[in-house]
Amino acid sequence: MKKLITLFATCLLAVSALHAQELTNFAFGGRPIISPELTQDSVTFRLKADYATIVKLSGSWMENPWTGTIDMRRGENNVWAVTIPLPSPEIYTYYFLVDGVAVNDPQNVLVQRDGTRYLPMLLVPGERTENYSEAKQHGTVSHPWYHSNILGMDRRLTVYTPYGYENNPKKKYPVLYLLHGAGGDEEAWISMGRTAQILDNLIEKGLAEPMIVVMPNGNANQAAARTLNIPEKPMANRWDREAFEKMSEAERDLIMNGYVRSLCTEIVPFIEKNFRAIPKPASRAIAGLSMGGGHTISASILYPELFDYICPLSAAGSATPEQIAALKKAGVKLYFLACGNTDFLFQGAEEMHAKLTEQGLDHVYYVSDGGHVWSNWRLYLNTFAQLLFK
Amino acid sequence: MKKLITLFATCLLAVSALHAQELTNFAFGGRPIISPELTQDSVTFRLKADYATIVKLSGSWMENPWTGTIDMRRGENNVWAVTIPLPSPEIYTYYFLVDGVAVNDPQNVLVQRDGTRYLPMLLVPGERTENYSEAKQHGTVSHPWYHSNILGMDRRLTVYTPYGYENNPKKKYPVLYLLHGAGGDEEAWISMGRTAQILDNLIEKGLAEPMIVVMPNGNANQAAARTLNIPEKPMANRWDREAFEKMSEAERDLIMNGYVRSLCTEIVPFIEKNFRAIPKPASRAIAGLSMGGGHTISASILYPELFDYICPLSAAGSATPEQIAALKKAGVKLYFLACGNTDFLFQGAEEMHAKLTEQGLDHVYYVSDGGHVWSNWRLYLNTFAQLLFK
Repeated sequence: MKKLITLFATCLLAVSALHAQELTNFAFGGRPIISPELTQDSVTFRLKADYATIVKLSGSWMENPWTGTIDMRRGENNVWAVTIPLPSPEIYTYYFLVDGVAVNDPQNVLVQRDGTRYLPMLLVPGERTENYSEAKQHGTVSHPWYHSNILGMDRRLTVYTPYGYENNPKKKYPVLYLLHGAGGDEEAWISMGRTAQILDNLIEKGLAEPMIVVMPNGNANQAAARTLNIPEKPMANRWDREAFEKMSEAERDLIMNGYVRSLCTEIVPFIEKNFRAIPKPASRAIAGLSMGGGHTISASILYPELFDYICPLSAAGSATPEQIAALKKAGVKLYFLACGNTDFLFQGAEEMHAKLTEQGLDHVYYVSDGGHVWSNWRLYLNTFAQLLFK
Repeated sequence: MKKLITLFATCLLAVSALHAQELTNFAFGGRPIISPELTQDSVTFRLKADYATIVKLSGSWMENPWTGTIDMRRGENNVWAVTIPLPSPEIYTYYFLVDGVAVNDPQNVLVQRDGTRYLPMLLVPGERTENYSEAKQHGTVSHPWYHSNILGMDRRLTVYTPYGYENNPKKKYPVLYLLHGAGGDEEAWISMGRTAQILDNLIEKGLAEPMIVVMPNGNANQAAARTLNIPEKPMANRWDREAFEKMSEAERDLIMNGYVRSLCTEIVPFIEKNFRAIPKPASRAIAGLSMGGGHTISASILYPELFDYICPLSAAGSATPEQIAALKKAGVKLYFLACGNTDFLFQGAEEMHAKLTEQGLDHVYYVSDGGHVWSNWRLYLNTFAQLLFK
């Protein structure tokens, strides 16, 4: 036993030596650097930077979240720091600017991915964020690949199955199809949207039905997130009006609706074959943000019978009165239309709300503060997920 | 249709504006910055840093991979660059030092995670790395949670199921349990080890049997990777010799073998219940690196009947002649012992090889160049995976 212990200790020491670089995480004297450090009413950020001239902090809570900065001060042992009043409860992202170059916080274990950027998160606790941290009971997140004949490739999905799925091999579950926006991919809702945490918490508290959540990649030219480095498929350019107008109807439809058709006629059957999903409209929901809100509306137009729950969020899309009438006829259990009141797409939401009202399609019109941002999309998911399949 | 196109375009533009920060990825004149840029015999790294005084590059191909640096030169539009001879085919990691602070390459989509650090990768193509990029056909990676009574918590696993698993609902598969080293977690083999890519490629080429690969978290005090920010469980300190010697046998066994017992008596049954696994020793393999090599050897000692394929890699662990004799008696189809010839644990591997020989346990002794590094562990996986279940 003694020998085994010694061997383990040797190993551990040696591995630590390999990570000598992480010693920069400690100020002289061996006191670890803590960043971000939260108190009741403040948060302090720290970065050790021995040779920097100017170190700044930029965070998404700032008045101008993309260009706003605040100076940090060099302290003992070249640990730069700044303390600010604690922003209101939310998940923010931030980074340091070291002599003008964006740097992530090496002390922060909470990181999210946006496109190909990894950004440290600041999670300010409070009522608004209580479902954004890890619950006690966890669902399973998986990444199966389905084959799309329509788009001509294997494509990666993210699928959440709720806690208990493995232990109840006869139980079948309803399914939420949850779509990302432009610039996103099949991991956006998991990474920035905290979908697994929100569903875990809501289900654990009995506030949402246990459900499967399917998050596809909504970029018709991509097999998977860019981080996998799979070459994108060259697609006809939908922005080239002249070329577009010369195309056949089928070509145009592939460009405009290829992904939505793949979702509704390939992904839905794939999920209902490979997961224990209830294959009925009353057990299918579709929701999406921005471009994914457009996809949500398109799916409800092209396949009005498929989903009984339809939730366009800050949606880049619209429907005609006739399309809304057809949807109403097909039957809708919940139409949840959400938008921020400073969103650049707010006018579109207002118009959609008016049209739904005009056509007598019962719906929830959920207007929040703020704009076209993830803080709103997390809030919407946390809200409408409680209304599904009930 | 025209209106929908306009709406999409508006949305796309607005989302781009939100990502204005990414404009720093472009040099003036709109030419995108490319980094790393590979030619037949060189690689160029580039970083835009307007106000930096000194920018350096550090990479794992350097003679001293943890402290070695090379100066970069400021060029037009403050794009710093350096061109070096292309290192031999392998996956390397690197980072920039901007006035002394480590910075990731914002242009590089290939990133791996080591502990809580995200590091850009340089994948140099060649025979050695041909299985490290995405294959055409992809298996599914999932993260189920199993309950451990032994360790008293729900714990996160990484599970790879091979391409075709979904389309062959009656087929059962053999299982490789693949264990990480100290400092690693349940994502280490997927992120740094490229397990999904290696298995996808080997299976696609017909070089390996389609198999399930299970990658648990080998830190007995952790429910999951530190990046999930779940508090660790306080554990009795195994390094406190005095305290350790005062413990009961049961307490000592929990400290020394708790994880391996959970693996063999909880994880294996969980997998064989929830995946289509063949529940036989001839269809079970265990492999692990460093600390995980120690776990592999421990599992083969504590449960000699469980696995017919045993692969300790750069292992921090050993076995007595009696234990080897017991294992031989239980039956072994493959014992694959691997180590680098400059590994600090090489002497232990030599001794283990001698003991296996002495006890007449047929084995492969695979000695590679190099030390205690991921380039070796990828090589070993790419090698022994071809020998399993045949």
